[in-house]
Amino acid sequence: MAPPFSFRVLHTDGAARRGEMTTAHGVVQTPAFMPVGTRGAVKAVTPRDLREVGAEIILGNTYHLWLRPGDGLIARLGGLHRFIGWDGPILTDSGGFQAFSLGEKRVITEDGIRFRSHLDGSEHLLTPEGAAEIQAQLGPDIAMVLDECLAQPAPLSAVKESTERSARWARRCRDRFLQLRDLCAGEWRLDSETSESRTRVTNPGQAQFGIIQGGTVPELRTLSVERTLAIGFEAYAIGGLSVGEPADTMYSVVAHTAPQLPAGSPRYLMGVGTPIDIVEAVSRGIDLFDCVMPTRNARNGQLFTSEGRLTIKNARYADDGGPLDPACACYTCRTHSRAYLRHLFVSGEIGAAVLNTIHNLRFYLDTMARVRQAIVFGTLETLRQSLQAMFSRPLSDS
Amino acid sequence: MAPPFSFRVLHTDGAARRGEMTTAHGVVQTPAFMPVGTRGAVKAVTPRDLREVGAEIILGNTYHLWLRPGDGLIARLGGLHRFIGWDGPILTDSGGFQAFSLGEKRVITEDGIRFRSHLDGSEHLLTPEGAAEIQAQLGPDIAMVLDECLAQPAPLSAVKESTERSARWARRCRDRFLQLRDLCAGEWRLDSETSESRTRVTNPGQAQFGIIQGGTVPELRTLSVERTLAIGFEAYAIGGLSVGEPADTMYSVVAHTAPQLPAGSPRYLMGVGTPIDIVEAVSRGIDLFDCVMPTRNARNGQLFTSEGRLTIKNARYADDGGPLDPACACYTCRTHSRAYLRHLFVSGEIGAAVLNTIHNLRFYLDTMARVRQAIVFGTLETLRQSLQAMFSRPLSDS
Repeated sequence: MAPPFSFRVLHTDGAARRGEMTTAHGVVQTPAFMPVGTRGAVKAVTPRDLREVGAEIILGNTYHLWLRPGDGLIARLGGLHRFIGWDGPILTDSGGFQAFSLGEKRVITEDGIRFRSHLDGSEHLLTPEGAAEIQAQLGPDIAMVLDECLAQPAPLSAVKESTERSARWARRCRDRFLQLRDLCAGEWRLDSETSESRTRVTNPGQAQFGIIQGGTVPELRTLSVERTLAIGFEAYAIGGLSVGEPADTMYSVVAHTAPQLPAGSPRYLMGVGTPIDIVEAVSRGIDLFDCVMPTRNARNGQLFTSEGRLTIKNARYADDGGPLDPACACYTCRTHSRAYLRHLFVSGEIGAAVLNTIHNLRFYLDTMARVRQAIVFGTLETLRQSLQAMFSRPLSDS
Repeated sequence: MAPPFSFRVLHTDGAARRGEMTTAHGVVQTPAFMPVGTRGAVKAVTPRDLREVGAEIILGNTYHLWLRPGDGLIARLGGLHRFIGWDGPILTDSGGFQAFSLGEKRVITEDGIRFRSHLDGSEHLLTPEGAAEIQAQLGPDIAMVLDECLAQPAPLSAVKESTERSARWARRCRDRFLQLRDLCAGEWRLDSETSESRTRVTNPGQAQFGIIQGGTVPELRTLSVERTLAIGFEAYAIGGLSVGEPADTMYSVVAHTAPQLPAGSPRYLMGVGTPIDIVEAVSRGIDLFDCVMPTRNARNGQLFTSEGRLTIKNARYADDGGPLDPACACYTCRTHSRAYLRHLFVSGEIGAAVLNTIHNLRFYLDTMARVRQAIVFGTLETLRQSLQAMFSRPLSDS
């Protein structure tokens, strides 16, 4: 039985698509932004806050959840949805990017990624099969294949070797995914323990996305597309970007790669990005995004508003009794002044992180709603220009 | 014109009273517990969370708000209610207890308390008149007089001297309060700047409570009651307790002092306490409480439940898929398992502080609702015994 995963395009505006992605835990309007819940929690907010700001799908990190509290524990407790108290769609990355971020602490072989835990230094091996098993136990609606993310710039030979290896890993990861799916086929229920394996499949409706690598080399991107499409996944992501390359380079790679991906599947640009990055990528055919920027910046007092970026600790806001963003209807903007938000931030209050995160997520999700609307009305270019004007200039308060 | 402050007793059960306190920003059902919002925020929760857990009145700290962001700034922005986004009743302490807590950094003279700021070491003098002026600018519904809080145990002569000084300070603080009230009499509006003073009265409906001192010496408590009642306040608090003395000593002082206070005014026991302390004090005639215990313990992972206290980081909860407290209907208990709350706490997630605080406050406020109900039905003694049984024993998980 095929998983309850589907995608249909409702409208287009140039290469941009306004779509609807159906997962085992509900429907997502695309283009969509996924708030990042690294360790099973989008930092500083509750599932209720996420609903209220308009999140339809969130992201969890396989690497972090594997090491703590462990995929076995989460599986025993019914899977990630039940564990974190979020019954909407969830996507988990494969752990490849986190392992990449460990730098010195990891060694990549054909087998997989050997690394030392950032928590206690213990040694672990993450294989393509293991990534599929861990995600089977976690039970997100969308699992990602294990890929190798390469630091840029890198010699062409290294990029080619890495791209080829990612394709081989994708094959192994898909095989294990399909094997686990077959084992529990027809058991469309939670906690269906498979008979031939100790891996517990907590979400039989899980889909798996392949990841296109190839660095900034068009030929290698094309090669990666061919290899990955040949394996066949429910949908495809573009990985290995937003790792330090110039924005224009990223846009070029997206423009080159996205049209080669099937029109009938959503396209996910991993780890991107600023509001400008998002609208630029949407206009090149991307449907899904995730980034820590709105949540991390919120905790650092960097806020996104309809008037541009704003640094809340700036002294000019000490006496400012107006709302953070007069155009925003989030709880923070409805309730508190800039002066109060500055006071909380300067005082190191936990509430500053909470209120700033609610706002920044709402800004991002409102922006996605505007993007979707613009595609329907054929006005994406106008929106793109207005976001460029708003966020290209220096900070409004610097 | 008298301020819109009143109190009426609806039911009694022995010395315990079930009452209703009316303030300029609404009615409070008593006995009541006031969550502590030291720096203008109850740590880790929003005003919306406070409403949902059942808070009717919250406390702010004059010392902290005076030093940052400053009472002048808060007054210019319309007063504390508007500044913090809470339109219900607020009480502020006078700053005396915080100055007491500074230890070496403060010197007490007849004039007032000279101290160095914990923020930047700058020198400040807090006088009784100043405490009234700062609170006039902050605009809580209930202001407290400046008192001297003495470390216990102390020589009898020192307690007597301190008690006498607190009475003289109370006189000066009341005089300034009445002067400010007269200056804006008839101007029942916010931001009524007085003509003869630079102090801005942001809440003309403010009431002022006197504070009974006298340490643990019954005769000095009686002396303090006489002096303070002679001045005359809207209501009275018992201060200088919960500073390290045994619980039985505190209960004795309350039993001695409370009956000497007017039956027609609420009685406030400052800085108290555990659920047991609260029910013991209610049964001796106390109506109002405040304490950092539910919020501070929440951030430390110490949770109050209907089954006793619980330390969430305990390994026994790692696999516990049940709710934190099966008898609790708060958002945390409705949404998350002990296993998840343990994971968040162990991972150092901000969400742990948020969810734990929501629960602990709800536990305290639910306990107050049970106390009020017990008084109405004449069953306070039964409730007292059940809370004693629940919270006298060691931690359920230690």
